[in-house]
Amino acid sequence: MELPVLIETLRTALETNTVHLIQEEEENIHPADYASAIAEFPINDVWTLLSALPAAVQAKVFGYLPAEVQVELSICISRRKLAPIIRQVSPDQRADLFNRLTEEQRETLLPALAIAEREDLLQLCSHDEGTAGAIMTSDYAMLTADLTVSQALDVLRHEAPDKETIYSAYVVDKSRHLIGVVSLRELILAPVTMPINELMNNAPIFASVDTPQEEIATLIAKYDLLALPIINAENQIVGIVTYDDAMDVVAEEATEDFHKTATIGKLEISVKEASIFLLYRKRVFWLVILVFGNIFSGAGISYYESTISDHIALLFFLPLLIGSSGNAGAQSGTLMVRALATGDIKLRDWGSLLAKECLVASLLGLTMASAVVGLGWWRGGYDIAIVVSVTMMLVVLAGSLIGLSLPFLLSRFKLDPATASGPLITSIADVAGVVLYFSIATWYLAL
Amino acid sequence: MELPVLIETLRTALETNTVHLIQEEEENIHPADYASAIAEFPINDVWTLLSALPAAVQAKVFGYLPAEVQVELSICISRRKLAPIIRQVSPDQRADLFNRLTEEQRETLLPALAIAEREDLLQLCSHDEGTAGAIMTSDYAMLTADLTVSQALDVLRHEAPDKETIYSAYVVDKSRHLIGVVSLRELILAPVTMPINELMNNAPIFASVDTPQEEIATLIAKYDLLALPIINAENQIVGIVTYDDAMDVVAEEATEDFHKTATIGKLEISVKEASIFLLYRKRVFWLVILVFGNIFSGAGISYYESTISDHIALLFFLPLLIGSSGNAGAQSGTLMVRALATGDIKLRDWGSLLAKECLVASLLGLTMASAVVGLGWWRGGYDIAIVVSVTMMLVVLAGSLIGLSLPFLLSRFKLDPATASGPLITSIADVAGVVLYFSIATWYLAL
Repeated sequence: MELPVLIETLRTALETNTVHLIQEEEENIHPADYASAIAEFPINDVWTLLSALPAAVQAKVFGYLPAEVQVELSICISRRKLAPIIRQVSPDQRADLFNRLTEEQRETLLPALAIAEREDLLQLCSHDEGTAGAIMTSDYAMLTADLTVSQALDVLRHEAPDKETIYSAYVVDKSRHLIGVVSLRELILAPVTMPINELMNNAPIFASVDTPQEEIATLIAKYDLLALPIINAENQIVGIVTYDDAMDVVAEEATEDFHKTATIGKLEISVKEASIFLLYRKRVFWLVILVFGNIFSGAGISYYESTISDHIALLFFLPLLIGSSGNAGAQSGTLMVRALATGDIKLRDWGSLLAKECLVASLLGLTMASAVVGLGWWRGGYDIAIVVSVTMMLVVLAGSLIGLSLPFLLSRFKLDPATASGPLITSIADVAGVVLYFSIATWYLAL
Repeated sequence: MELPVLIETLRTALETNTVHLIQEEEENIHPADYASAIAEFPINDVWTLLSALPAAVQAKVFGYLPAEVQVELSICISRRKLAPIIRQVSPDQRADLFNRLTEEQRETLLPALAIAEREDLLQLCSHDEGTAGAIMTSDYAMLTADLTVSQALDVLRHEAPDKETIYSAYVVDKSRHLIGVVSLRELILAPVTMPINELMNNAPIFASVDTPQEEIATLIAKYDLLALPIINAENQIVGIVTYDDAMDVVAEEATEDFHKTATIGKLEISVKEASIFLLYRKRVFWLVILVFGNIFSGAGISYYESTISDHIALLFFLPLLIGSSGNAGAQSGTLMVRALATGDIKLRDWGSLLAKECLVASLLGLTMASAVVGLGWWRGGYDIAIVVSVTMMLVVLAGSLIGLSLPFLLSRFKLDPATASGPLITSIADVAGVVLYFSIATWYLAL
C-alpha cells in the first residue's frame, strides 16, 4: 500500500473508531511502512494505532519509528503500557532509545526490564557514541567448538527467535573468547556428525568495541559480511554489528561529510525536524570564521587601491578570476576529501596526486585563460587581456594546488580532512587570487 | 595479516620462486585481502599469484580485484587459462566485467562459457547502467509453493553451492511469477511437513528491472532486506540484488553527489586511477560555465564604477560580503540537496522549509551584521558601517534563500537537485551580493 493511502486508511479508522479492525489487514503491511504512516499522527494517535497491532508486531513497528517519536512515546505513555514493547525491541535499539532519554526518564523505564536485560542495557549504553560498542547488539548466536553440526543446528533452532541473526554463529571457548565463525549455509551443507571445530572458519574478521563506526562499516562492506563480531579488551565476544546497521552508518557518515563540505556542523536529526536555533548554531560558527578569512582578501584589494583607481576596468574581472580560483580549488579539494574518506587514497599518495594535479590544473588554466582572453581584450584592450589571461592561468593552478593540499595537511595533523570545506578553500584561494591578480596588474601595467 | 606484510610476503615468494607454497597459507587470508595485495603487482605477477591459489578460491579473489585489473587480466591472459575463473565468478560480476570490455574482447571470451551461461550473461548485460537490471545477479534460490518445508530445505541444500544467497528463497508459480518469499530462518524453525504456501510471506517487497539503483538501495535499507527480488515487465522474477551490492551503491551514489556539489562530473573510476585527460574533462565544463556566471558580477561592479571611485573604501568589504552570501547559500543548498537525496524531505516540504530558513537566515544575518559593524566603522566611519551591516544582513538572507530554493527548483523540473552545487549557488549569490551592496551604498551615501 502506498504511504498516503495507508495514512488515509488509518485516519479513517481513527475517526470511525474501527482501529481494532487493523489487525486483520496488518499482515500485508510491512512494519517499516506502518511505522512511517503512524509517525505522521499526533503522539496519542500513534499510541492508539500502535497498540491496535498484534503484540508480536508492536516491537517491530516501534523499532522502525523515528528516534524522536520513540522518545516522545517513552515520555507520554505510562511505563506499564510501554514495558512489553520495550522488552521486545532488539537490545541495540533499546540502547539507542535510552541514550536519548534524560536520567530521570531512564529511571522510570528501567524497572520494566528484568535484571539481566537491565545489565545488558547499561553495558551497551556505556560505550562512546560513534564506536562499535554504541551500535552493536548483544543478541548474537553463540556455539562451542565441541558440538556436532546437528547439535549446533538444534542450538540455533532453539535460540533463533531471540537472535538478531542466526546466519552467522560465533564459536567461543569456555572463557567466551572468539575462536571461529560458521555460517548457517555451511551448517546446512555439512554432514550432520561433523564437529564444528572442523567446519568453522578459524580466522574470523572481528573488531573491538572502541573501533570507530565508519571503520566497522568499511570492514563489513569490504568483506561482504552479514555481521561483524565485536570483542572487548579481554578478546571476549560482546556483540555483533549487522549489515543493516552498517548501511545506516555509511549513509550517516556521508551526510555528515556532505554537511562539512558546506561548513555545517554535525546534525543528529533530520533537517526537517531540526529546530531553528539548532540550525543557527550548526551554521553560524564557520560563517563568522570565514568573514575573518575574507578580510584578508579585502585587505589585499585595499593594498592595491591606487592600481585599481588608475585602471578601474580591472574590477570587472575580479569576481571571475577569484571565483575560478575558488571553484577549481573546491573541485580538487572535494575529490581528495571524498577519496580519503572512502579509503581510495592514503596520505602517502599526496606526492603523486600533486604531480598529476599540476598537469590537470595547467590544462584547466590554459582552457580558462583562452576562454577569457577575448573578453579581456574587448573590455580593456590588449594589456588587460594579457593580465587577465595570465592571471587566470595562475589562479586556477594556485587554487587547485591549495584545494588538493589542504585535506592532506589536515589529515597529516590528525584532523578531519572534511574540514577542508569548499567555502574554506574558496576563502584561501580568494586571497591568493586577489594578490596574484593585482600584483601582476601593477607590475605589467607599470611597464 | 596486515596488507603491507602480505604484499612483502608475496614479493618474497615471487623472488624466490616459492609461489606454489602460498596454497598452504591461503586458508588464513581472506580473498578480499589477497585481492588487495596482488592488485599492487604488475599484471603478469597478478596472474602468477592468482593461479597459485586452489581453483575454488581463484574466482572469489578475482571477484574482489579492482575493475581495471579484471579488465587487464581479461586482455593479457589467454582465454584458455582464464576461462575456468570466468565460469565461476558470480553472474553479476561477470556481467560487470563484460560491460567494461570492448566488443572484440567480449567475442574472445564468450566461447569460454556454456550456452546457458552465455545467454544469461547477454541478458544481464542488456540492462541500462544505473538500473536494478545492471546490478542484479541471476543466482537466486527458487521454490514452488507446493513443496513442504523439508522438501524446500532439500532443494536449497542441493542448490546452495551455486547461489549467491540461500537465506532468502523466492516462491514462484509455474510461469515464474513471484508469489512469495521465505527465509531460511523460517524454514529451519517451521515444522518439516508444513507446506511452503502456508509459511511464506505472500506480499514480498520487490522492484522492477528498470528501477534506478539508488531506489533499490533505499528499499533494501528501509526494509532491512538481505536481498531484493527483481521482476521483469511480465512480473516474472529475473534476479536479485543483495545487500552488499546495495551498500556499494550507497557509497557510489554518495561519491557522485559529493563530486557534483563541487561541479565535478561523474567519475567511473577512482581519482587515483583516473587519467589526467579524464579529470580535465570532468572538471572543465562547469569551470567555464561559471566564468560566464561571474561575468554578471563583474558587470554589476562595472555598473557602479562611479560609486566605487568615490568611495574606494567600499572595496575592502566586497569579498567579505559576497563571500558570506555565497557561504550561507552553500550551507542551505547542501542541506537541501542531501536531504532530498536521502529522502528526508520531499518536494512538498519546500514551503515550510522556506519559512524556517527565513528565520534561521535572519538570525545568521543579524549575527554576521554585528560581527562586521565595528569593522565598517573602523575602516570607513559611521556611514560605511551602516551600509556594510545592512548589506550583510540582506545578502546572508538572499544567499540562504537562493541556496534553499535552487535544489527544489531543479527537482521540480525533473533535474538532479545535486546540480545546485556550492560553486553554482555561490556564483548566483555573488551577483545578488554585488547588486545589493552597491545599490544600498549608492542610495545611502547619496543621502
